[in-house]
Amino acid sequence: MTKEKKNKPSKELPLGFVDRIEKELLVRDFVISNIKEVMIKYGFQYLETPSFEYSESIGKFLPDKDRPDEGVFSFKDENKWLSLRYDLTAPLARYVAKNYLEIPKPFKRYQLGTVWRNEKPGPGRFREFLQFDADFVGTKSLQADVELCVMISEILEKCGLDKSEYIIKISSRKITEEIFKKINLNDNLQKLTVLRALDKIDRLGWKSVKELLGAGRKDKSGDFTKGANLSSKNIEIIEKEFQKSSPETEDLVEILNIFKDYNFSNFKFDPSIIRGLEYYTGAVFEVNLKFDVKNNKGQVIQFGSIGGGGRYDNLVNNFGNYDAPATGISIGLDRLVYALMQKKEFKLKQSKPVVICVLNKNFLKEYINLQTLMRNSGISSEIYPGEGKLKKQMEYANKIKSPAVIFYGEDEIKSGKPTMRNLNSGEEKSMK
Amino acid sequence: MTKEKKNKPSKELPLGFVDRIEKELLVRDFVISNIKEVMIKYGFQYLETPSFEYSESIGKFLPDKDRPDEGVFSFKDENKWLSLRYDLTAPLARYVAKNYLEIPKPFKRYQLGTVWRNEKPGPGRFREFLQFDADFVGTKSLQADVELCVMISEILEKCGLDKSEYIIKISSRKITEEIFKKINLNDNLQKLTVLRALDKIDRLGWKSVKELLGAGRKDKSGDFTKGANLSSKNIEIIEKEFQKSSPETEDLVEILNIFKDYNFSNFKFDPSIIRGLEYYTGAVFEVNLKFDVKNNKGQVIQFGSIGGGGRYDNLVNNFGNYDAPATGISIGLDRLVYALMQKKEFKLKQSKPVVICVLNKNFLKEYINLQTLMRNSGISSEIYPGEGKLKKQMEYANKIKSPAVIFYGEDEIKSGKPTMRNLNSGEEKSMK
Repeated sequence: MTKEKKNKPSKELPLGFVDRIEKELLVRDFVISNIKEVMIKYGFQYLETPSFEYSESIGKFLPDKDRPDEGVFSFKDENKWLSLRYDLTAPLARYVAKNYLEIPKPFKRYQLGTVWRNEKPGPGRFREFLQFDADFVGTKSLQADVELCVMISEILEKCGLDKSEYIIKISSRKITEEIFKKINLNDNLQKLTVLRALDKIDRLGWKSVKELLGAGRKDKSGDFTKGANLSSKNIEIIEKEFQKSSPETEDLVEILNIFKDYNFSNFKFDPSIIRGLEYYTGAVFEVNLKFDVKNNKGQVIQFGSIGGGGRYDNLVNNFGNYDAPATGISIGLDRLVYALMQKKEFKLKQSKPVVICVLNKNFLKEYINLQTLMRNSGISSEIYPGEGKLKKQMEYANKIKSPAVIFYGEDEIKSGKPTMRNLNSGEEKSMK
Repeated sequence: MTKEKKNKPSKELPLGFVDRIEKELLVRDFVISNIKEVMIKYGFQYLETPSFEYSESIGKFLPDKDRPDEGVFSFKDENKWLSLRYDLTAPLARYVAKNYLEIPKPFKRYQLGTVWRNEKPGPGRFREFLQFDADFVGTKSLQADVELCVMISEILEKCGLDKSEYIIKISSRKITEEIFKKINLNDNLQKLTVLRALDKIDRLGWKSVKELLGAGRKDKSGDFTKGANLSSKNIEIIEKEFQKSSPETEDLVEILNIFKDYNFSNFKFDPSIIRGLEYYTGAVFEVNLKFDVKNNKGQVIQFGSIGGGGRYDNLVNNFGNYDAPATGISIGLDRLVYALMQKKEFKLKQSKPVVICVLNKNFLKEYINLQTLMRNSGISSEIYPGEGKLKKQMEYANKIKSPAVIFYGEDEIKSGKPTMRNLNSGEEKSMK
C-alpha cells in the first residue's frame, strides 16, 4: 500500500508556478481587452513572437544572475542553445532586425505573452508571468516616452482606478551615467554593481544600499553580497545627487515639458527608479499603486510596481547597424489583476449554466430539445453531466453556483411545461 | 568586417517557431472569443494551468518518441525534472487529482494555452501550438462525448463555416481493443506499434500500413521503421474489421443514438481514427475540413484535422484512486485560423490610426490637443511618431495603411480648422 503510493507521480506544481481559476481569469480577460482597445487607439499594431528564441538572439540582460543558466530556461537543440524569452523586448529587437526592410519606421507594436524567469524558487517568487507590452522602435523623439506614460494611465483608469490610486515614477539612466562621469567610474561591471545596488533603495533602504555601494552587505540570513567598492566620498556624491527633487538631465527636462503639453501631472521624478534590465539607455519609468495590497493571509505586502519600461536605444544594434532607437512599456498582468481584484468588485457575468436535472434517462431527447432551445436563446445551460441521483444533481448545481435548475418529469413533459427552481430565492415556477 | 558580422547574434528563429502578425492575430482573437462564448453557453468553466509541470506528473503519452527526451522540452530543476506541457489534458488530470475534494463533480472546464512538442525540426513542423480545450471529468455518460462533437460544430459554424465544409470523424479505441482480443495480442508495446501503424492510414494508405503491421517499412528516404510483426492472417483480420461501415461496439452504438436525439448528422464513422496520444480508452473523434487548404506557394496540402479528442477514463487514476472517467476535445487554433483565413474574407476592424503630421515642432501642444480630442471620441490616432520630414511622414502613413493624415499648420491653427486627407480617395477637407 505504502509502496504503491510511492509510485504515484506528484500532484503538486513546481515552485514558482500556479493554477489560475475562473474569477481571476475573467478579470484578466477584462483587463486584456481594455489594454488592447487603448493600445489600438494609440496606434500600435499587433505582433506575436514565439516563446523560444536562440539564446544568443535575446542575450543576457537580466539582473541577478546567480544561477549558472543566468536566469533563463535554456535547452540545447541540435547544436545551438534555445531559451524561453525572459521578456518581450529582446525578442522584439530580434524581430525588428530580421524584418527591418519590411516594417514601418517608426514601428509601433503591442504584444501579449508569457515570459519565464528561472529564478531561485521561493515563496511568492513566480517563474512565469503574463506581460502586455507596447513599444516604439525607430524614434528618438521623447514624445514617444511620454505617450507610453499617458497611455498606461488611460489603461489603469479604464480598468477602474482613479488618479489618486497610482503614480508614474520617472527617472533616466542618463542621471547615473553623469554620476559615473563625476566619480570617474569607467568599469562596466562595477557600474552594473552600482546600478543593482541603487535599484534596491526602495526595498532595502539607503543604509543597506550604501553598504552595497561600498564593501558589501550581509543580509539577515547571513549571506554576504559583495559591494561595488566605491569610496565613502563617492558614495556621498551619489547620495547627494539622489536627493535632488527635480531632474537636470536634458531628456527628463524635455519629457516634463511634454507632460505639461499633455496636461499630464500624475507622475513623480524619482532618481531611485533604475529598472533591473541592463539594456536601458535613457528615461526609465515605473507604475506604482498607492493603495495597500495584501497577501492571502491579509497582511499588507511590499507590492512593487505593476509595470514599467524605458528607453533602450542600442538594443537592436546588437544585430548589426540599424537605425532603431526605441522605448517601451511592459505591464505585469498577473500583478495588476491581483491588485485590482482587491480594490474593486468586478461584476463580470460568469454565465453559470442552468442545470436541467435528469429525472428519467428515457426522457433524454426531451432534455436535449429543451437544452437546445435555451442555448439557442443564448442561455448557458446543460443537462446534468454526471450519473447521480437527484440529490447529487442538486449538490452539483449548488457547487457550480448555477442560477437555477429545471425539473422536467413525466407530468411536466405531458403538459410541455418544465418547472424552473431559482437557486438563489428557492422560488419555483412553470416555464413556457 | 566579416569578423564583426560573425560576432552578431542570429536574427533568425529556431526551426519550428514563427512570428505572427496582425492579420492572423485579429482573426485568432475573433475565433477565440467565439469559442469562449460557445463553451460558456455549454456550461464549461475557465481554468489555466501553468506551462511547466513536473515531468513525472504529465507522464509520457506522446506518439513517435524518437528523441531521447521523448518529444517534450524538459530540464533539471534542483533535484526534479520539469517539462513544458505537450497538451492541456495531462495537466488537467494533475489539477483534478490535486483539487479533487474541492472541484464540482463532474468537472467541466475550458482552457486556452500554448503547448510544446520537441519534435525533430523540419519544414512545416511546428514545435509550439495554441490549443483550446474543453473537457468533462468525472462522468462515464456518453452524452458528454456527444456534447463535445455538437459543441465543436456550433463553434465552427459560428466562425463562418457551413455544414458542408467540415465533418466529425468518430471511432473508438474499443474497436481496436476487441481486435486485439480477436487476434490474441496482449503485449502492450506491440499493441502500441499496431495503433501507431493504423494511425497512419490516412497519410500513408493501407499498403504501407500493412507493411508497418508486418515486418516493417522502408520510406522514400531509405529509413526503415520496424513493424508490429503481426502474421499476414492477423493483418487480414484487421483490414476486414476496418472495412466495416457501421460501428458494433456498445459505446459507439449509444453515441450514434444520442447523436440522433440531438438531430446531429454531420459525422462519419471511420475506424481509421486512432488519435496519437496513448491515454485514450473509448470514443475518439477528429474534426476534418472538407475544403482544400494551400501552402504559401499555392499548392494544396494534406492538412489533417483542426481538432479532436476522445475519452480517457484512466488518466486521473495515475495519481491515485479517483473516480474520474473523462472525455475532452482539443482545438488546434493555429491550424483552424490558417484554414479559415483561406476560406473566408474576415472584415475585422483593424483601426489603423489617423496620422497627425508634424509640420512644425513648435505646434506640438496643438497636435497633442487634437490627438486627445480624436482619441476621446474613440478614433485611433497618433502624432507622427518619428522625426522625418513631411515626405517621410506620408510614406509612414501609407506604409501602416492609415485611413487619413491630418495637416495642421500655421494657417489651419489660426482658423482652428485642420485639413484631413483621405488616403484612399486622396480627397481633402477641412475639419471642425
